[in-house]
Amino acid sequence: MNINEEILKLDWDRDPYGLYEPIEYTLASGGKRVRPQLAMIASQMFGGRDEDVLPAALALEVFHNFTLLHDDVMDKAEVRRGRPTVHMKWNESTAILSGDQMLIEAYKLLSGVPRRKLAKVLEMFNDMATEICEGQQYDMDFETMNRVKEYQYFEMIGKKTAALLGYALKIGAYIAGAKKKEQDLLYSFGIGIGFAFQLQDDILDVWGAPETFGKAIGGDICCNKKSIVSITALDMADEESCKELNYWFGQILEDNTEKIAKVTAIYDRLGVREHCEKGVKRLIDSALRSLSLLPQNEATEQLRQLANKLNARKN
Amino acid sequence: MNINEEILKLDWDRDPYGLYEPIEYTLASGGKRVRPQLAMIASQMFGGRDEDVLPAALALEVFHNFTLLHDDVMDKAEVRRGRPTVHMKWNESTAILSGDQMLIEAYKLLSGVPRRKLAKVLEMFNDMATEICEGQQYDMDFETMNRVKEYQYFEMIGKKTAALLGYALKIGAYIAGAKKKEQDLLYSFGIGIGFAFQLQDDILDVWGAPETFGKAIGGDICCNKKSIVSITALDMADEESCKELNYWFGQILEDNTEKIAKVTAIYDRLGVREHCEKGVKRLIDSALRSLSLLPQNEATEQLRQLANKLNARKN
Repeated sequence: MNINEEILKLDWDRDPYGLYEPIEYTLASGGKRVRPQLAMIASQMFGGRDEDVLPAALALEVFHNFTLLHDDVMDKAEVRRGRPTVHMKWNESTAILSGDQMLIEAYKLLSGVPRRKLAKVLEMFNDMATEICEGQQYDMDFETMNRVKEYQYFEMIGKKTAALLGYALKIGAYIAGAKKKEQDLLYSFGIGIGFAFQLQDDILDVWGAPETFGKAIGGDICCNKKSIVSITALDMADEESCKELNYWFGQILEDNTEKIAKVTAIYDRLGVREHCEKGVKRLIDSALRSLSLLPQNEATEQLRQLANKLNARKN
Repeated sequence: MNINEEILKLDWDRDPYGLYEPIEYTLASGGKRVRPQLAMIASQMFGGRDEDVLPAALALEVFHNFTLLHDDVMDKAEVRRGRPTVHMKWNESTAILSGDQMLIEAYKLLSGVPRRKLAKVLEMFNDMATEICEGQQYDMDFETMNRVKEYQYFEMIGKKTAALLGYALKIGAYIAGAKKKEQDLLYSFGIGIGFAFQLQDDILDVWGAPETFGKAIGGDICCNKKSIVSITALDMADEESCKELNYWFGQILEDNTEKIAKVTAIYDRLGVREHCEKGVKRLIDSALRSLSLLPQNEATEQLRQLANKLNARKN
């Protein structure tokens, strides 16, 4: 079953067009469809039927896209996946309302899971959705904080990014009839690669190759965004470097060339990159250990490859 | 069981505070709690236990308040129930995100209904939520339309206002074990009083007494808002009156005293008020007929009184 095709098969040709067109636009804009795929793979690992897990897989993808839509309004982002964001192409009210409807559509899709699994799946989905809103709130709170501690940053990305991956796997496994212990191991794997993915993203934002990263390098430095890199740097820094970093993190500039160069030089001097990369490797190793305790079959192998690809990723 | 107390008992003292405080603020701001009460009364009509319907009743109230929160952002409303709206007191991102979380909380509450009723209640709740978003979209679409037909207006308020009342009753009845036919009669009653409520609101906006209406009189005229009054007036108007109305509906003014007086005079000349009031009476009579086909007990009597009060309401 090709999950991307299933997503594009969803029919949004309904009245009022102004409500559903932005939903179609958002879901047609691509993305890697990682979350629904994780749900399908988890189900396959336990011999589940694709059609049983499909409603939940689609619900997860629609939910994920809903969060992007509303996050883009909150972040005033103008471009997403190479196209204007919904609030730019239409307007903000449209982005709010079509986003709300997307969240409701996610629950509609979810209601299609096998009936005797519904209550538990709904509960897991609600918990997942709550974590993501909480994560977004922490992320917004961080903007006005001078210093964010590493454990706070981990709590934030755990909720905002990792939870959805963990729950996608857990829900898929549950629907396929996996035992509680197996669901939990898959959840751990998902959380681990979710953390690793976000940290890798933070690292590539500083040291990625512009031609493969897909975003401008140094974006986090420009807008003084908290990331594992900036947090680690402040933790590792001597008094002098700390002062220098805080000076730059207090600047909002038109031309960021010098700022990016200077801050990156401090990161390099402190050995921040190596430290963060070790962190990513530890997370992936731990995720792979969870995986090794699960049934070994084609699905497990797919997840293993995903984790290894993540470790080597450049974009 | 006092539904207002149950709503105020919901505990929002959680981290991150920035996410949950606006939810608590919104739910503590009062309102008549009509929707959860309708669910409870419908359940009582069929001998249902209050505790079985309570999760759905709470979910309906939380959902309703979520729609108000996001509608206020879209409408840029500054005051709600005598207090600053969430996006004024905090900011727009907070209003969007806390609203999203309220919608998720509604689904969390809903998941507490008796398990073998859950699938059907979830389905009804999803249909209801969809209608409300669609209604809001139509309402926004109307802002940029020159002329809205009566049937379009009815479709809009049917979704935006009436559906929630109809579904509150239907869901309450279903949980209490009412037959399909009985659920449908209650749904009809709810839709009928929902329509009547909105039309009465439109009428009072023009002819209400300032001291009892709670809002400034003539608000719809000032901002050229489509209402049953303006739509009926254009339908009843001769060519000359039509021209006059369209002239005024094209004006955006600082001081609306003359505009309100002139437009109201045209409405009076055309006999719009009597026409609209007859419409309200017809809707209520029809709603009462649905009620007469249902079991007659204390609950039915409460709904009858509600309908009659609506007919005579001045605020």
